Formats: sequence, structure tokens, C-alpha cells
Amino acid sequence: MNTIGHYFRLTTFGESHGVAIGGIIDGCPSQLKLDFDFIEKELLRRKTAQSETASQRNEPDHIEWLSGLLDGVTLGTPIAFMVRNKNCKPEDYESLKDVYRPSHADFTYEQKYGFRDWRGGGRASARTTLPIVVAGAIAKQLLKQKGIGFVAEVTETGDVQQAQKEGDTVGGIVECRITGVPAGLGEPMFGKFSAELAHAMFSLPAVKGFEVGDGFALAKMKGSEANDTFVNSVDLGLEDVRRETNCKENSPMSYVPQSSVKISTLTNHSGGIQGGISNGNDIVFRVAFKPIPSLARPQQTVNRAGEPIEIAVGGRHDVCALPRAVVLVEALAAMVTLDLVIASIPFQSLPLTPKV
Amino acid sequence: MNTIGHYFRLTTFGESHGVAIGGIIDGCPSQLKLDFDFIEKELLRRKTAQSETASQRNEPDHIEWLSGLLDGVTLGTPIAFMVRNKNCKPEDYESLKDVYRPSHADFTYEQKYGFRDWRGGGRASARTTLPIVVAGAIAKQLLKQKGIGFVAEVTETGDVQQAQKEGDTVGGIVECRITGVPAGLGEPMFGKFSAELAHAMFSLPAVKGFEVGDGFALAKMKGSEANDTFVNSVDLGLEDVRRETNCKENSPMSYVPQSSVKISTLTNHSGGIQGGISNGNDIVFRVAFKPIPSLARPQQTVNRAGEPIEIAVGGRHDVCALPRAVVLVEALAAMVTLDLVIASIPFQSLPLTPKV
Amino acid sequence: MNTIGHYFRLTTFGESHGVAIGGIIDGCPSQLKLDFDFIEKELLRRKTAQSETASQRNEPDHIEWLSGLLDGVTLGTPIAFMVRNKNCKPEDYESLKDVYRPSHADFTYEQKYGFRDWRGGGRASARTTLPIVVAGAIAKQLLKQKGIGFVAEVTETGDVQQAQKEGDTVGGIVECRITGVPAGLGEPMFGKFSAELAHAMFSLPAVKGFEVGDGFALAKMKGSEANDTFVNSVDLGLEDVRRETNCKENSPMSYVPQSSVKISTLTNHSGGIQGGISNGNDIVFRVAFKPIPSLARPQQTVNRAGEPIEIAVGGRHDVCALPRAVVLVEALAAMVTLDLVIASIPFQSLPLTPKV
Amino acid sequence: MNTIGHYFRLTTFGESHGVAIGGIIDGCPSQLKLDFDFIEKELLRRKTAQSETASQRNEPDHIEWLSGLLDGVTLGTPIAFMVRNKNCKPEDYESLKDVYRPSHADFTYEQKYGFRDWRGGGRASARTTLPIVVAGAIAKQLLKQKGIGFVAEVTETGDVQQAQKEGDTVGGIVECRITGVPAGLGEPMFGKFSAELAHAMFSLPAVKGFEVGDGFALAKMKGSEANDTFVNSVDLGLEDVRRETNCKENSPMSYVPQSSVKISTLTNHSGGIQGGISNGNDIVFRVAFKPIPSLARPQQTVNRAGEPIEIAVGGRHDVCALPRAVVLVEALAAMVTLDLVIASIPFQSLPLTPKV
Repeated sequence: MNTIGHYFRLTTFGESHGVAIGGIIDGCPSQLKLDFDFIEKELLRRKTAQSETASQRNEPDHIEWLSGLLDGVTLGTPIAFMVRNKNCKPEDYESLKDVYRPSHADFTYEQKYGFRDWRGGGRASARTTLPIVVAGAIAKQLLKQKGIGFVAEVTETGDVQQAQKEGDTVGGIVECRITGVPAGLGEPMFGKFSAELAHAMFSLPAVKGFEVGDGFALAKMKGSEANDTFVNSVDLGLEDVRRETNCKENSPMSYVPQSSVKISTLTNHSGGIQGGISNGNDIVFRVAFKPIPSLARPQQTVNRAGEPIEIAVGGRHDVCALPRAVVLVEALAAMVTLDLVIASIPFQSLPLTPKV
Repeated sequence: MNTIGHYFRLTTFGESHGVAIGGIIDGCPSQLKLDFDFIEKELLRRKTAQSETASQRNEPDHIEWLSGLLDGVTLGTPIAFMVRNKNCKPEDYESLKDVYRPSHADFTYEQKYGFRDWRGGGRASARTTLPIVVAGAIAKQLLKQKGIGFVAEVTETGDVQQAQKEGDTVGGIVECRITGVPAGLGEPMFGKFSAELAHAMFSLPAVKGFEVGDGFALAKMKGSEANDTFVNSVDLGLEDVRRETNCKENSPMSYVPQSSVKISTLTNHSGGIQGGISNGNDIVFRVAFKPIPSLARPQQTVNRAGEPIEIAVGGRHDVCALPRAVVLVEALAAMVTLDLVIASIPFQSLPLTPKV
Repeated sequence: MNTIGHYFRLTTFGESHGVAIGGIIDGCPSQLKLDFDFIEKELLRRKTAQSETASQRNEPDHIEWLSGLLDGVTLGTPIAFMVRNKNCKPEDYESLKDVYRPSHADFTYEQKYGFRDWRGGGRASARTTLPIVVAGAIAKQLLKQKGIGFVAEVTETGDVQQAQKEGDTVGGIVECRITGVPAGLGEPMFGKFSAELAHAMFSLPAVKGFEVGDGFALAKMKGSEANDTFVNSVDLGLEDVRRETNCKENSPMSYVPQSSVKISTLTNHSGGIQGGISNGNDIVFRVAFKPIPSLARPQQTVNRAGEPIEIAVGGRHDVCALPRAVVLVEALAAMVTLDLVIASIPFQSLPLTPKV
Repeated sequence: MNTIGHYFRLTTFGESHGVAIGGIIDGCPSQLKLDFDFIEKELLRRKTAQSETASQRNEPDHIEWLSGLLDGVTLGTPIAFMVRNKNCKPEDYESLKDVYRPSHADFTYEQKYGFRDWRGGGRASARTTLPIVVAGAIAKQLLKQKGIGFVAEVTETGDVQQAQKEGDTVGGIVECRITGVPAGLGEPMFGKFSAELAHAMFSLPAVKGFEVGDGFALAKMKGSEANDTFVNSVDLGLEDVRRETNCKENSPMSYVPQSSVKISTLTNHSGGIQGGISNGNDIVFRVAFKPIPSLARPQQTVNRAGEPIEIAVGGRHDVCALPRAVVLVEALAAMVTLDLVIASIPFQSLPLTPKV
């Protein structure tokens, strides 16, 4: 369960203050010239997106590419990469070695494994999401060729200034829109597009909620309000709308090839997914993040011996993780989408010629 | 992607009006005497839980056990079972053969597969969730031996009477509580307890939202409000509270065996999961269901040719699916929990003796 | 580990004297009109191929198709099927309930599961291979469209007449040739074509050896004898040879599209696989089967209490399983090949149009 | 298909002349103090086992441990490691850039991926087996605790001296014996112990044959010769024999706990596996390797344009790969065995206490 994806697969490794963080990507098509600039920019989005309160570690995330490439072109073989952890100061954490920080994973890891890497959160650190950005950037590059794009943004967050003054932190919500998705992606039963997205998003630290389309609001609606009406967008002169909403012109799997018929929905309460399968509209979902649990203000907790203890984390940590999370949400969305795209490649398209 | 679970695995089959619905369970331990009464009762919960407006098909769900059992005891080999679809009236659906019902999966299945089983929703029908109840009941039986229980209920729903009068439908929310879960279940990174639950719940038809603990509400809290304070519940005389909240007395993986120390949290904003791993508190989550899309009142849509058409479904369908969903939520929660329990069985516990 | 295949997947169930034997096929493309006659013929090859000494059970293997089909056409959803076990006479086996038949799986199953289904071999019976024939027949039908064929035959076996007279049994070797395989199938490292075939073949009961190309004989050769020389078969006027040996004319993945160059090998010591990947030649492999362990002549063994006991099986069992095995070897070869064909469908072939 | 194992999993990366070779191990139990000396010794077995004809690259294989360890103790999180490729001289291979070396993977990789890493065999190089030795050494260390051991040796090979004089190469056979295996390991149908071993062994370069127990010789035997007679080894006073043959004294899964009964087989034609499941005897298998295809003597082949060309590889390559292969065969056997051991950990052994 350290791998995500069925066809385009990322297996990751690394602890916050270990030697390195990295991963292996399996199933990346060969002959793709990697856009290293884009990958670096995506990593920078994760890096510089943080709040002005500088984070503790400021090292540049320099990627070492270990395999799978020849002159920057993918060989089709596993792509391994890593970023070394520099400026590690495990001694900063030594005082917390025997303490369970509230709402961190210190206690649960120790219960699971019998002991834990106490240096900066170990495997549970947000730093371990770095490989996701790399794999996501490659997935985005591939999907861009097929007209599929990803845009996430923070749509809700607490008052960062006020919280910072009080030594407190805030959570928030990231909304993501996947554009250009053809109808027909996703697998019935246990491989639904929504389920794969939910699984991926809950792999990010601090995620506590996920909804597709109108999500929880749908629980309060009536069917007549929640249903998305199908229309022939050609008839209704809605082609402009349709283009804006990114329905595919010539969906290849379309049952109806005639150009005079383009079926789409007037509204998008479903968030582009019906029966677990994309319907050609934008896929829209939201991810709820709890506040960062490390506070500058004092908190009560206990140590391993069960003794009460008061802790306070220096002001060097982020007040709000949301800006960093945006690129992670996009990256996972891209990985999930690419995976389902590969899963949907039709057998018929296999370019083998029957013998004569 | 037609299989759920890594160790305790369910693979399902069946369309609503095909020959049968069923599944294969792999990884069930041998020598378990199946509690058939319990399984039947669970199926009945799904069946009779429906609203008073009678559903169209009233056949009893008689399970045929096809393999994996000897005198009702599990052999350790695959357990296959099925329920035949009786009283099928595909002709009831013939008029809808070329029509895309709003917010159903008709359109998306057709886009994916080139054509669809139009008889009663085919593979997308809620009837295909039946095998989940069976596998869930077996998982519950196994976990009961370990003191782990599952209780779900409908916590929010629209006004069914009013909606029925208007030929409309309502959605709602199911909340589930898993009690008796030991700390230490769940895998870091891509096998988090929360992620596995999210994936499972989004496998149910009509699910559009999922949250753990305080979920989306956490996005509005400050860290000081959201954090769960660790305490030594023995010191605080909270043992009674602890018992009520089902923290395990003698968690086997506990790092601290002394009976004078029982670490738990005063609050449960985290819903029992921190860093993706159970912390010994109840696991609490909520699932949002959209309203049933089949309405008695007329709706606009299009047929395959893109022509506008008005449809209305007879009053024989449910107004609210929530009561039926309760047992499904519990069943999937049980399957996920059992899977993570098996994943956590320690190598050390393997009863092999080193040679002398 | 009850499923074979990564993309075209078969999950099976059933014990010899249980209710039914069957399986679920996932990943079969939609819109394939199943050739039921062909499937029945393949099942008959398994049935009637047996030696003249009639086997105990003579029921026709009538397949019930449970899901995944509409009017005989695949829906793209899971295809479930089963064959009921008729004429079961578990009482015939009651005397063997506590006895470990030599070189059968009685003892090992009991050691694994704590008890066993003693009725006719249970899950270990050769009857449980029936679903492989069904899935293999569907795989063959799909691959025939791409010009890929499968021919197996018994190339070595003991003297059946002589062995029968003595109440004894014989083993043998089945050789299989896969024709029309394009170059480029198979995955490096842990998904080699040869490794996938080996895994599949060892899933058959009684298999004790597997070799590709010249196999074990290669261990005695020098490199200069074992190497397959590459030639341009156009230059050498070897096109006829090439056609016979089923190299693909227009291999779609070919780096060299010019019709004046067709690279193949003069010899085929490698059996069509180099570096784990097909090279365009026929894939040739051999499977060694041990003799059937059930003998008409008396054998010594022990019962569960460790007491010596003599057993003899009536003459109703086969003397040689090889003729039945031929269709099984072909079926598994077809399933493996289809799986690797699907795995090799290039991303570029995905018929999505980039947005303008 | 770049991962081996279901529970104890190795995912590898690296090309012969890329930056590094390495892997990620998932599923290793926590709190194991790694025996680095042993791992280094195992790597040295692979290194120095080569024939006296020195190989081209003589760099020490220095392992960098990247994650999953704290002070040399496993954290339970992914263990990543790598060995940098030093002394790479890609220019040595530049002349072979457009040439298909006979019985190498040059041609097949190019057919699969459209182009290839021509530097020293790329991903198909035997150097990429290095991570197997590392993972195998860890598996051996874990299994040693349970009394399970692995001994392989070269049992057959050509005349190395004579072949070297002629600029030729030889193949051979490695036999491996797994001792101390409890009865009951292996999964019916598609997870047989023999099938898992076969799959693993065929993952090694140059493997063309695999057999268990008497293997291909069984195809020529009669049932009465091939069957292994069960005996009560206590009764027969065979305890010493039994001990030698490593049957487990107190097999934990044994149905018969009485010390007066120890069931084992007098002979081991089955190689310790019956019905795909271990029977408590030694597991014995043989692996056939073809000769190294790189010859010092001239060979005919073609280049990418189909033009005939003569090539000869300098004398720096091995004449016989068998001595190097011994540790690889053991390593894979250890990984497979550990995987099946973990798969067999009984649910009952889970140390959870039911609530009171």
C-alpha cells in the first residue's frame, strides 16, 4: 500500500530527516522528452507557496534522476528520482523524542511499528509528498497532449494573520477542476473515478474531507434540484457553453459520431462523474484540510510514560498549509486521470494487423 | 478494479436484470463457522429498510453458496455465492432503451463501453451492492471475535413525505462509528485508514461526499480548536469514559504495557485516525448521498439521437435510499477494517519454531 | 493469489464435489460477440481427450453464464460463469476421509487450512481447471482477430497400455507454440513473457517442469551454438520462411517501417523470447507433467493418526492426464499473451484529440 | 510488473550505465536490526563468484541506504537503497549502438519501446539483478529466525577452460534447496509455491528452464515410481532422517499435535511441494541458464538498417555466469518463501483481545 496507481504507478520512499525522499514511477510511456523546467516549476509551487512565516528548512529541492532516462527521454523503464534531505537538524526534535504531539502521527506510528522516527515527523512528514509533485508533473505533461488540464485553488481558509498573532494555525479547502476529460473514464464498482480521486486525496496529510460536484450540499437537495439535465448542445446553440465547459468535440468513444449531436448536461451538480464514470463535463471536487497541528502557543499533551507535559513549537512552522497543498491536489488528480486514461485504451486500438 | 481489498478481497459480478448477482471472497480464514442467520438478517436490513413506497421487485434475496464451504465451515478457499434475479421485467425498461435518464449512468456507460445493458440500470444498479452486504457480514463476524463493532445510522435526510407527494426524492447523510479498533491500523502514504474508507464508500452508488471526524468543519477551525489532546486516562480517572468510547483495554501493539498508563485523547475531532493510522478511539465518518435520480414527476432529457424527450418514472421506486445504505456503509467499513487488521498481523506472531 | 492476469483477469472458485465450479473474468473488452460454439468445443477437448478408461463422472459441462453479457455480446463488465457439479458421489471418497493419498494434496491442504474438503480432491482437483478453458477460449477469440494462434500437443508420454495393465499411470510433456506474436510483448524484470508463462503453467495440477525454446538443453550448449543469428529476411529471400514462422509483416511497433527490412532470427533456440520480450518468432515452450498419483494398484500410506494403511483407487481414473492438459496449456498461454498484449497498448494510440 | 512479491515486495530501478541501480522494499517488518555485514557478503558472492576472466567493471558495490532505517533498525516504512554505477564507459558500447547483438535484448527492447538504452545492455543488463541480492539477504535474515535456510550450487556446467580458449561461453544449471520449510505454505490455484518460484527464477536473465523435485524426469516415470509414500517417521524410527531432511518438529499448523505422530514422505520426488503447497520436506528445484550471448569470437548479425555486420566482444566478459547466479537464485527463493510465510500468518494469531 505504498504504491498509487494501477498502470501509471508511483512507489515512494523517505522520511523527513532521513537521507533522501524519492520514488519510482512505473508505466510511463517511452519516448517522452521530460519537461524538466516544468517539473522544477511545480516543485517551486509547493516550495514558495508557503505562508510568509518562513519554514524551518530552506534547501532547494534538487532532483537527482537515477534511472529510466536517456538524454532526458523516457526509456519506458522505471523512472527513479530522489531529493536529498539537507540542513537536517534532528537535534531540534530531540526534546520531542518521547512526547506525543497532539493530532500528529507520533502516537499512531509508535503503536503501529513499536517505535518511530522522531526526527521531524519521519515518514508522516508533509515533506514525503514531494514525489507526488514529480509524478504529477509528468502525468500532466502526458495529459496535456490529450487536451486534459488541471486547475486547483484555495477556496476557503481561516484568517492567517489573526491566527499567526495568536500562535495558532488554520485549515481550509482546495477546489480542483479537471478540464477536457473525455466521457467514459472510470471503472464500475471499485474503480470509480470519484473513488480513485477520494483515495488519492486522502493520501495527503491533514485531509479530512472530500466531495465531488455539489458534494455534501446534494444531501440537502431534492432529486429535481440535484439532477443534471441532458441536452443536445448543438440544438440548443450551446456549443460555446460546451466549449467553455470543455466537453470534448470528437469524443473517440462516442456512440454517436454525427456532428449534429453533442450530448452534455446543462448543469454540473454531479461534478462531471455519473455512475463513477466521467460524463464529459469538467470534473470538480473539493478537499478539506484540517489546521496544521504544530502550534506556537503552548499545548498540553503526555509523554510516552503518560506524564503530562506542555509543548510549544517555534514560530518557524507554517500557519496554513493550504497554498502548498494546491499543487499536490493537482498532481494527484493528474496521476489518477492518467491511470484511468491508460485503463480505458481500447483493445481495438491495438495496432496489430491480422495475418492474411 | 472490480475487486476491493488487499487481503480480504471481494470480486463481484452481475447486472440488475441479468441472471444473477454475486461475488467471490478470497482471503477468508479457514475454520470459521458462518453465521448464516446473521448474513440473512443483514440482507434483510438492506431489503426492508426501504421506504414504505414499495419497490418494484420484491423477490427474496436467496443466497446460493457455490464454493469454499464444507458443512457451513469455511475451507480457506474462495467463497463464491450468488442471488438469482427473479421477477425481472426488462420490458418495463424497454421504453428507456434509447434514453439517457438524468444523473443516471446510462450515458456514461454507453460512452465507456459503446453500448449498455438498458435493463434496469445494468451494472450501475444499486442491486449490484448486494454482494457487499454478504462479504461485510462475514467480515463483521470475524471482527466481532476481536471486539470490533460497526454502527451506522442516517443522521440527515430531507422530508420524505413532502418529497413523495411531489413525485420527488431526497438524499442524506449516513454516519458510521467503528468501535473497538486497536491503535496502529492503517498504512502510511497510500494505504491510510481514511483513504481506504473513502475509496470504499465512494464505491457505493450516489455517494458524493465523505469526511472523517469533524471533516469539512475542521477547515474552519483553528489548530487549537481542532487538535485532540493526549491524556493518560488512568491518571485522569477517565477509564469509564475510555470504556464507553471503546478504547482497547490491552492494545496488543501498545508500546507501553504498564496498566497504569492508558494514552487516549480527550476529544475526537480526528475521528480516530491520525497520520492515516487508527489511534484507538472510535473511528467516525460521514457519507453524503445525493437524491435518487429516478423521479415520478416529469423530467426533460434527450435520447441517443439527441432529441428532447420527457420521462417520468412510476411511483414504484424509492423516495430515499438512505435507510438501505446504512447496512452497506457498515459492510464496507467492516471489509476495510478487516483488511487492515490482516495487513497488520505481525511477522513475530508467526508460530514457527526455529530449528534446534 | 486466486486471480491470474494483470489486465485480462480470471478469478476462480469451486471444489470438485461442491455446488459448482466457475469464475469471473475482468477486463474483457466490450462489444465482443462470444463464440459459444468454440467455447463448448474447447471444453469438449478437455472432456473427451481423456483416455479410453472412462472417468468416474460423465456429466456434460454445461456453462451457465451469469453476468457480463447482453444477447451474447460482452458488456465490458465482469463475465461470471459456472458449471454445476452433478453426479457427485462424495460417499465414494468417505473411506479416504482420514487418509493422505500419496503425492496428492490431501496432506498439504490439511496442514495449511487445519482441515480439508475430502470429497474428490476438493479445491486441488483437476476439475477446478475448467474455468481456465473458458477464459482461454475467450482470449483465443480476441487474439485471433490480431492473428495470434496457439497450438499445443503431447510430445512425450509413457506407454499407456502397459501402465494400465499394471494399474499404473504415466506422465509426459506438452509442447506449445504461439504463432503470430508481434515483437515487443513482455515486461522487463518481473513481467517477462517467459516468467508469466512459467507462472501460469505451474498453476496446473501435476506440473513439475517448464522450459522455453531449447530450455534445459541450452545449459549444455556453448554460446556459439545457442545464439540465434539476426538476419534481414528480405535480403536473404527468407520471406517464405518468415511467413511460415509467423513473423509479423507489419509489426506496428517496429522501429524500421521500410518494407525492405525484416529482421528475424535464422534459428529459434530462444523460443521467441529474448530479455523476457517476444522477438517476433514463434514462442515455443514445454511443460512437464508428473504421472497421475491415483493408482489402481495398491499403495502404502498413512492416515491422520499416522497408522499405516494400504489404498487402491478403482480403475475409473485416467491413466494419463496429458491429452486433457493440451487445451489447458493453450488456454493459459492465450490468457498470458492477451494480458501482455493489453499491457503493451501504446498510450499514443489513445484516440483523444487535443483541444483546439 | 516491475514489482515482485505480494506482501514482502521489491520494486527495482536502474540501467547498467545509468546513474544508479536500486530498489524499494515494502512490507519489511519493523524493529529488525539489519545485518549489514551479511548483506555485503551476499553482494560479494555475486561479485567475486565470477570466473577468473575479469569482468569489465570492477567497482565495489557500495550500498547507499536512503530510507526506512533508524540507527540500522527497520522502521516498517519503505526501505530504499541504491548503488551508483561507476567506471561507466558508455563509449565502449557506442559501436554497438545500431547493432542487434545475437540473443541479447537489444532488438526486443527496441521493438517494445521504440528505442533503447544501448549503453551496456541498459535495463536488460545482469547488473540490474543487484537489488535482488539486497532484498534476498534481508529475507534470509528474517527467515533464519524461523529456521528456514537456502543453499544453492552449480550442479552442471560446460567446460569453462575449453570454451574460453575458443572465445566461447557456457551455460549450466543451478540447484537450490530450501530447508526448514513448514508444511502449508503456498496458495492453491494461482499462488502455488512452485508457480511463485518459477515466476521469480524466470525473472533472472538467461533463464530458460525450471523444474521442481524430479521435474522433467517425472514425465518419464510411472506413478508407482513417482509417488512419495507418506510414513509416520516416529513409528519408523526415522526421526534422524527426518531431522536431516529438515521436516519441522513442531509444525504450528499441524492438524496432529501429538508428538508420537510425525508425518513425512520417504522419498522427495515432489521436491517438497504437493498441490502447490509445501509438505514439510526440503523444497528442491533446478534452474537452467543459457550460455552468455556475448562472445569473444566473431558472430554474424545485422544492424538497424538490416545490413549484415560481424561483431566480437572483447575478452573482458565472463565465460560462465553460473557462479554469479547462485546467490541470485537463493535470494529470489528467500523472497518468495518470506512472501508465502507472511501470506500464511493465521488470523487467529492476531493478538487482539475481545472486549469484555
